[in-house]
Amino acid sequence: MDLTPRPENRFSFGLWTVGNRGRDPFGEAVRPKLETTEILKGLADIGVWGVSFHDDDLMTFGATESQRRAELDEFKRTLDETGLVCSMATTNLFYHPIFKDGALTSNDRDVRRYAIQKVMRNLDVAAELGAPIYVFWGGREGVETAASKDTRDALSRYKEALDYLGGYVKDKGYDIRFALEPKPNEPRGDIFLPTVGHALAFIETLEHSEMVGLNPEVAHETMSGLSFYQGVAQAMWQEKLFHIDLNDQRIGRFDQDFRFGSEGIKDHFFLVRLLESSGYSGAKHFDAHAYRTEDVQGVWDFARGCIRNYLALADKARAFDTDPRVAEAMARAKVAELAVPSVGAYSASSAGQLLAENFDLDVLADLSYGNEALDQLVVDHILGIA
Amino acid sequence: MDLTPRPENRFSFGLWTVGNRGRDPFGEAVRPKLETTEILKGLADIGVWGVSFHDDDLMTFGATESQRRAELDEFKRTLDETGLVCSMATTNLFYHPIFKDGALTSNDRDVRRYAIQKVMRNLDVAAELGAPIYVFWGGREGVETAASKDTRDALSRYKEALDYLGGYVKDKGYDIRFALEPKPNEPRGDIFLPTVGHALAFIETLEHSEMVGLNPEVAHETMSGLSFYQGVAQAMWQEKLFHIDLNDQRIGRFDQDFRFGSEGIKDHFFLVRLLESSGYSGAKHFDAHAYRTEDVQGVWDFARGCIRNYLALADKARAFDTDPRVAEAMARAKVAELAVPSVGAYSASSAGQLLAENFDLDVLADLSYGNEALDQLVVDHILGIA
Amino acid sequence: MDLTPRPENRFSFGLWTVGNRGRDPFGEAVRPKLETTEILKGLADIGVWGVSFHDDDLMTFGATESQRRAELDEFKRTLDETGLVCSMATTNLFYHPIFKDGALTSNDRDVRRYAIQKVMRNLDVAAELGAPIYVFWGGREGVETAASKDTRDALSRYKEALDYLGGYVKDKGYDIRFALEPKPNEPRGDIFLPTVGHALAFIETLEHSEMVGLNPEVAHETMSGLSFYQGVAQAMWQEKLFHIDLNDQRIGRFDQDFRFGSEGIKDHFFLVRLLESSGYSGAKHFDAHAYRTEDVQGVWDFARGCIRNYLALADKARAFDTDPRVAEAMARAKVAELAVPSVGAYSASSAGQLLAENFDLDVLADLSYGNEALDQLVVDHILGIA
Amino acid sequence: MDLTPRPENRFSFGLWTVGNRGRDPFGEAVRPKLETTEILKGLADIGVWGVSFHDDDLMTFGATESQRRAELDEFKRTLDETGLVCSMATTNLFYHPIFKDGALTSNDRDVRRYAIQKVMRNLDVAAELGAPIYVFWGGREGVETAASKDTRDALSRYKEALDYLGGYVKDKGYDIRFALEPKPNEPRGDIFLPTVGHALAFIETLEHSEMVGLNPEVAHETMSGLSFYQGVAQAMWQEKLFHIDLNDQRIGRFDQDFRFGSEGIKDHFFLVRLLESSGYSGAKHFDAHAYRTEDVQGVWDFARGCIRNYLALADKARAFDTDPRVAEAMARAKVAELAVPSVGAYSASSAGQLLAENFDLDVLADLSYGNEALDQLVVDHILGIA
Repeated sequence: MDLTPRPENRFSFGLWTVGNRGRDPFGEAVRPKLETTEILKGLADIGVWGVSFHDDDLMTFGATESQRRAELDEFKRTLDETGLVCSMATTNLFYHPIFKDGALTSNDRDVRRYAIQKVMRNLDVAAELGAPIYVFWGGREGVETAASKDTRDALSRYKEALDYLGGYVKDKGYDIRFALEPKPNEPRGDIFLPTVGHALAFIETLEHSEMVGLNPEVAHETMSGLSFYQGVAQAMWQEKLFHIDLNDQRIGRFDQDFRFGSEGIKDHFFLVRLLESSGYSGAKHFDAHAYRTEDVQGVWDFARGCIRNYLALADKARAFDTDPRVAEAMARAKVAELAVPSVGAYSASSAGQLLAENFDLDVLADLSYGNEALDQLVVDHILGIA
Repeated sequence: MDLTPRPENRFSFGLWTVGNRGRDPFGEAVRPKLETTEILKGLADIGVWGVSFHDDDLMTFGATESQRRAELDEFKRTLDETGLVCSMATTNLFYHPIFKDGALTSNDRDVRRYAIQKVMRNLDVAAELGAPIYVFWGGREGVETAASKDTRDALSRYKEALDYLGGYVKDKGYDIRFALEPKPNEPRGDIFLPTVGHALAFIETLEHSEMVGLNPEVAHETMSGLSFYQGVAQAMWQEKLFHIDLNDQRIGRFDQDFRFGSEGIKDHFFLVRLLESSGYSGAKHFDAHAYRTEDVQGVWDFARGCIRNYLALADKARAFDTDPRVAEAMARAKVAELAVPSVGAYSASSAGQLLAENFDLDVLADLSYGNEALDQLVVDHILGIA
Repeated sequence: MDLTPRPENRFSFGLWTVGNRGRDPFGEAVRPKLETTEILKGLADIGVWGVSFHDDDLMTFGATESQRRAELDEFKRTLDETGLVCSMATTNLFYHPIFKDGALTSNDRDVRRYAIQKVMRNLDVAAELGAPIYVFWGGREGVETAASKDTRDALSRYKEALDYLGGYVKDKGYDIRFALEPKPNEPRGDIFLPTVGHALAFIETLEHSEMVGLNPEVAHETMSGLSFYQGVAQAMWQEKLFHIDLNDQRIGRFDQDFRFGSEGIKDHFFLVRLLESSGYSGAKHFDAHAYRTEDVQGVWDFARGCIRNYLALADKARAFDTDPRVAEAMARAKVAELAVPSVGAYSASSAGQLLAENFDLDVLADLSYGNEALDQLVVDHILGIA
Repeated sequence: MDLTPRPENRFSFGLWTVGNRGRDPFGEAVRPKLETTEILKGLADIGVWGVSFHDDDLMTFGATESQRRAELDEFKRTLDETGLVCSMATTNLFYHPIFKDGALTSNDRDVRRYAIQKVMRNLDVAAELGAPIYVFWGGREGVETAASKDTRDALSRYKEALDYLGGYVKDKGYDIRFALEPKPNEPRGDIFLPTVGHALAFIETLEHSEMVGLNPEVAHETMSGLSFYQGVAQAMWQEKLFHIDLNDQRIGRFDQDFRFGSEGIKDHFFLVRLLESSGYSGAKHFDAHAYRTEDVQGVWDFARGCIRNYLALADKARAFDTDPRVAEAMARAKVAELAVPSVGAYSASSAGQLLAENFDLDVLADLSYGNEALDQLVVDHILGIA
């Protein structure tokens, strides 16, 4: 099994992921700050293709324009040196106290306007860096008490901001698409657009909906116990999978952002199989961080592990799909028959025929699908005992 | 506080709700079967407006056409006698072994065709009974193992069936709209269209999307720990709240279908406030059942409790919204300011102005919103200590 | 309804609760630091009886002994001035990077020894301040990967530390009892002693088990979806409820520490009823903090709300227990009959009689318990519509 | 890798597991009834060692004594023929309507007495069959509304029943030990003794506590999102792991009872490693059932899969523990150091020394533990890519 990452794998990391210092709600940072240059070189060394950033990761918040320009130029030089691509950009609309009540949906209109301005400025940076995807994670767009915002107003403001920013991108001629990243809660009690589904539905209401898709994250869907795999498949089916955040998480817990493949192994087998077989060509973005027990060496162990697990699961997915016993079990389960239309388009005559059809209910009731055998083959391939 | 239900409250119950016999995965039925006539009379007695049914609740599955016609005629007579409205109809596509692998998305094409036929036949009944809403709860549309179905094929078949059935309704000239009822799991491991969001997004892909909306259920969203209130608000914002299933549930548990208002009291305060203030005019449908500890007397205690809790919360919501201290707290929280556009429609000139605007970040950072005081007023009103 | 707190209510707050500055995993502090003196005066003003502290809340970590003594003396003076009691003390064994792998169960023996030393030093302070309860919250005692610790070794070290520290307290003649505070996860992936039950069971293995009880916290049990009420009742039944942490939380989410009574209103009705009727005489300790949307005014709104909700629920519990309709419903539910022994102590003769007894199974099967009506009375009292 | 089950593996199944007919809350049975004889032969054929039963699985409820004796004798004959051992017995105290409000903790005293009688009668059968373990799963011992039972009374009745039944076993001289099986909810809203911890704590209060241990079940702990592995480890540490129920489950869902190893693969790696390395010598009891999509062939696919996954994980656990890279990573993580006492038993002199000890806090803060690398080795071994 060849577990060497290649550019065509399009593996990417955020600056904030390997740069995470291990701060958490009950503890302070445990690791030193890694300089951006060091991060890029480290990522290139382990075979990563792309890097993503928040505005405030890259350029010091509140610094002079000349310092920010110097930091940006240094970043561009290091991208050149390392051959890394800037694969995605996003805005930090959550860390500063300004955003305590939300950013694009803050009840304070000036906060909303400032947030939009902050995105616009970073869209300019994203365009300069050639980032094709701009992510919106609305971590502060939500409430602790439903009395504090009318959700319908909040969605209107959210839409207004995305319509405006879409207008800006088009006006500027930037080659950038937006990707919304849903999350159910944390840091807010309830976040608007909590799941892949809610965000997909919202996109349809946007003025520039064709340039807006999703950036689903393993941890965020899994927090609610929803199947990430099912959500990604629906996003693909609706042609809205623009980017993806890979990490790991246990259901019903705080946002853990564990190493990809370290927790929900079977879920990830199906996910990787779907990504690999579907022709998805976007970034495979690891939005995760090392355990707080780790020093810098552990951070790179973590990053290599994400990649290794993805590649191993991709290899297993290929083996699964070429295993003749799997083909046999899939036939027993009638998997391919689900691709056959049931009734076709409606017509009065076909309706008449269908209403007249006599089904042998005993035969239909006796059908069985061999899903235990099929699923055991999945486990066999995951465990390498097939 | 007047807690008398009136027709304009549009309270409805399913035949299967007060008719529930207390069977569960670990135990058999504990209550005798209530005849349909008895159910209708009981519902009318406690002030209910409407009643809903599955085909197999009303007419014996597999019985002769003449028996089924007699059962239907008896139902119509009793509707007339009691003054109850038939407010919703739906299909049982889950109980019979035929549907073990799904109905509209079974891997077996004949099962899918039979399921569509079963819906068509019951659409005829629904039309005859004047039911304006036809619900699709796809409880068996899902998987235990993701290897058994390609989700994208399943969604295509789901869409195909709904497009076909929408065609049938239009062709027949029935005055019926569809309402999809999402659920994340149970009885299947993962059900397709698991949340309000996923179903909303799916609807946009349908041929007759204008006649398809949602029937969200408290218990189903709550199982995943999502905010039912937020989901309903988004559905309203997208003009897709066609029907609603009211009951109660604890997060992260089996589908409990408890008496409305018996569990998530604060959530329901916000929900009822939203339904009452929004102009929602559909049925308020209690899809719940009595605890298994109850006999028939307890069943009616249960049904009266659902209504009582709704009316009490509606009264409290009105009191909350007219309380001057609430108005003051809402002003402190700037709730109304969220209805004010942030930037308006995009134009190059407004973008230029916004980019040039200087925000005083210290001022924005120092803003606070008084949400503790506002939320305490909510609790005060719920507890009746305001 | 009199909602004035009195000393006999034994309401207490931690310094860190009203002192919480709104820092979270995705955002920095939003509120200024409140000085300890200011906190104590504020608490006294709103009718609080007691205050609790972590060593590092009170005395600056790493400061000179003379500075620490000055801080402690200042605290004592202010206690005297305000009349507040020091009702509980605890150790910060989680914030400093030293504890990244645990404190009493760190894999590093020196870390464990240092942690024990840190507790001993603060036990001296606790004794000086007259704190009767010393809490152990082992937030860092856990793992992200089960490979990193043998749980059995970890429990042995945990026991060793508590046995040693119990020995120290006895040796010093301190009038202090220990209270363990369970939590399932966060900040660690899995924390040892995750629930009230696991901690109760562990206590039985301790050398000084008679001086060790529990400090259960609403949020911690609720995170796992367990019934906090049931856990507290079992702890009482085993005579181990030494202290209690009151706050609020939604199931299956990050540790929210919301205002008591703001979320799980019905759960808290039962909890307060249990605490009030059982003769529990320990502190009622609010371990919660204000939303991040709040400034200092909001912090005091929050603190008053905790107290107000407790008192309102206590009043409702009394009303419930004196309502004759409740008595009637309880009779129908046979609540009192559960206090009657079923069979008494075993003897061969009683066994023979019981084996020979003929039960009328039809009669037993037909029993019903009227729990819907009884539970509706609970809701009526909560809503104030009884 | 040899995946052949052997008697020393002590694999067992309940009659009700392969006998499960696929009935669920929303659907009727899909599979024919398997005769007990057929079940035993099938289990023997796939290499199973033991079988367990509920009284009502084996002997028809309500049948005449002679019919029950005939059924029992037939069972004994088939055990002899197949060489299967009767490894555990238990009572059905949940299916019949009699138990709707509980069995040992029903509010009705006659129900409680009947339940105790039912257990006694089946203890006689268990003794005759040589079952060394008698399981108590109190699925109906709980509430929907906390008003309906005082938990403390319920625990007293639970204790009374177990004390009485322990007395009966001792009086009769039966070589039987009890094992309590905790579950948090389903079919009741909240079940008493919801977790491994609560049951462990309860056992300490029993008169015959030395003969009472635990039968923890994967699915039941996992429903609450607790770590089953951690719970089992604590039960072992307290010497109370008497029996174990192996199956699979997704967090926060209805009780799924999936094929062992089909879902939480990493959790089970640690679990199997613990069972295999600890000297646990009890039954490894698969309490699971086939998906509802299956016919009888699928049932046996399911049963073989449970065994296969256990054996594969056991093999991987052995390989992991003999891998020199694992030893190296464990040294880096200081795993063995956790077995070294921190401070030993308390003495005034050791306390004095410890208080005087000077720790270099910078050194302790800089420690790191290499848990990412260690955990990746776990994943490597699970995937077979080590």
